[in-house]
Amino acid sequence: MKVLAILYKGGDAAKSEPRLLGTVENQLGIREWLESQGHEYIVSDSKEGPDSDFQKHIVDAEILITTPFHPGYLTGDLFEKATKLKLCVTAGVGSDHIDLNAAVKKGVQVLEVSGSNVVSVAEHVVMSILLLVRNFVPAHEMIERGDWQVSDIARNAFDLENKVVGTIGAGRIGYRVLQRLVPFDCKELIYYDYAPLPEAAAKAVNARRVEDLKDFVSQCDIVTVNCPLHEGTRGLVNAELLKHFKKGAWLVNTARGAICDKDAVAAALASGHLNGYSGDVWNVQPAPKDHVWRTAKNTLGGGNGMVPHYSGTTLDAQARYANGTKKIIENYLEDKAQEPGNIIVGLGKYESKAYGQR
Amino acid sequence: MKVLAILYKGGDAAKSEPRLLGTVENQLGIREWLESQGHEYIVSDSKEGPDSDFQKHIVDAEILITTPFHPGYLTGDLFEKATKLKLCVTAGVGSDHIDLNAAVKKGVQVLEVSGSNVVSVAEHVVMSILLLVRNFVPAHEMIERGDWQVSDIARNAFDLENKVVGTIGAGRIGYRVLQRLVPFDCKELIYYDYAPLPEAAAKAVNARRVEDLKDFVSQCDIVTVNCPLHEGTRGLVNAELLKHFKKGAWLVNTARGAICDKDAVAAALASGHLNGYSGDVWNVQPAPKDHVWRTAKNTLGGGNGMVPHYSGTTLDAQARYANGTKKIIENYLEDKAQEPGNIIVGLGKYESKAYGQR
Repeated sequence: MKVLAILYKGGDAAKSEPRLLGTVENQLGIREWLESQGHEYIVSDSKEGPDSDFQKHIVDAEILITTPFHPGYLTGDLFEKATKLKLCVTAGVGSDHIDLNAAVKKGVQVLEVSGSNVVSVAEHVVMSILLLVRNFVPAHEMIERGDWQVSDIARNAFDLENKVVGTIGAGRIGYRVLQRLVPFDCKELIYYDYAPLPEAAAKAVNARRVEDLKDFVSQCDIVTVNCPLHEGTRGLVNAELLKHFKKGAWLVNTARGAICDKDAVAAALASGHLNGYSGDVWNVQPAPKDHVWRTAKNTLGGGNGMVPHYSGTTLDAQARYANGTKKIIENYLEDKAQEPGNIIVGLGKYESKAYGQR
Repeated sequence: MKVLAILYKGGDAAKSEPRLLGTVENQLGIREWLESQGHEYIVSDSKEGPDSDFQKHIVDAEILITTPFHPGYLTGDLFEKATKLKLCVTAGVGSDHIDLNAAVKKGVQVLEVSGSNVVSVAEHVVMSILLLVRNFVPAHEMIERGDWQVSDIARNAFDLENKVVGTIGAGRIGYRVLQRLVPFDCKELIYYDYAPLPEAAAKAVNARRVEDLKDFVSQCDIVTVNCPLHEGTRGLVNAELLKHFKKGAWLVNTARGAICDKDAVAAALASGHLNGYSGDVWNVQPAPKDHVWRTAKNTLGGGNGMVPHYSGTTLDAQARYANGTKKIIENYLEDKAQEPGNIIVGLGKYESKAYGQR
């Protein structure tokens, strides 16, 4: 059996840091285990175009391992070529780089390590909210370049206390964000989701649901996006929706880049309608050198908290998703039941409602 | 009566942003009110040396207003010259720039606006912890310069979950930090303070007191400094104490710069003993261009989250401390009792234990 893993390159970092498990070099720590059972294990970061290792080996791989950080895009076309494929494992959370409808049609299972990095991402969201609202990046850059002008920073620095924070999506990550915001004494925590939270869960974070998206964003000082990418959420935060944001609102997106229209976000920053944008997800990854989100700024030259896609691949998260990936493959090989929460596509049908299936 | 205020210069920012109340330009919003009662109101940022406005006007001012952000250092020598001085008001929290023993001796009252920015600072602490632990600054700089190498960031990115966080000082700010950390599922929250928290308060944040400082720091993944600067805390975090920190610990100081030895901190970063240092306070403010904390880095070239002193001077905080300053002066003029929590030095005696008086 051939197992193919598309991971990101670790370089020198991976050589000196063995806990960087999710890299080409450290291979999720499962080579020895797979080979001891007679399986072939191909690991590469080469993923684009017909000559890539991804497209070369997908034709006879039985298991495909990918991550959201350096996604191997498994399109419908590639599914046609992947005649031996039985199982896709996402080492992490978020399987939008897999054509899930094609997986259903072809009877390929798609699993995630669902609990592996939801806390990591929720922490990144809270950090991003704080650093935008408190105007951190321009302040740090001022120190680095040798300056000191408190008023230039303070003029756009606020407290999170007494602001309205809203999450688009109150699932595994969005709810953890709400939990972490409770002691910050926000004016209100609100959420937009296709289904209401269970009563006790909503009460525990004192969050109110708003059913209309435009109405929802118009009430928020800070909007955070915590929903999966699917046909219903692609381009959700576009120029039209941004018009309904409060002037001077902040937007944080660690879900998927394509949920927000990149040019509309950049334009809203430039016009002063948005005060800041932060997150780690991009419509294409790696992001091209000239991606507008690298350099988009608000009218005061700040408001950009972008980073590469790593919030869910902290060393703590890597240990969890490497273990989880092994466990999923083990269950598959031994024909044992999978953790229900990990199954996105089961045998020929969706098991999760997270990707737009209602 | 002459009222002298030493504030920071706001420049263009203050002209276009009237909420920048704590600036020379916007004068805490009390000029009209003071002058309508026949008082003289001098406002300046000039504070160093015998020719400064500070030293020129302190000789006949009855009330001195200062801030921690651009501190007018009222030394014992200057107290000798300030023969008409009756009241010092700190617009903010932290009066270590006033020689408090001299104030006691001279019968000058010292008051702070004690609640005005403790939340602002506590938020900054939580932000700083997250951005060090999660390796934010190198990640953002990577995006700005057009690169994308996830492994170089992930190799030193961790979750706050399951780490031990300890605060030196569990007072007005330190306790608010602990409250905000509760939902992050840290391994443990601990504190070092001269007195234990009331039982109910300790229980509410599930924090354990450690009585010996070396023992305390040796247990922390993250140490945050939230105590006032006084004779007992100056240089508290020095080379000797740093030896007792865990290797790879992170240190956050938004209290006062002089509590940490700047060269010892920089050396600990360079050696890899500390993984990061962040905060907004400096032993001299404005910090000189060549201050080692501007450029100190860990062995991977990151771990610096320094900013100018602004955490307590967000626009939200400025509204609160401007109001509080007016209220204190109003009470003084009308001979009304002051809020007990605001009084650091009353008439001829300390009213607060925060500055080392036990």
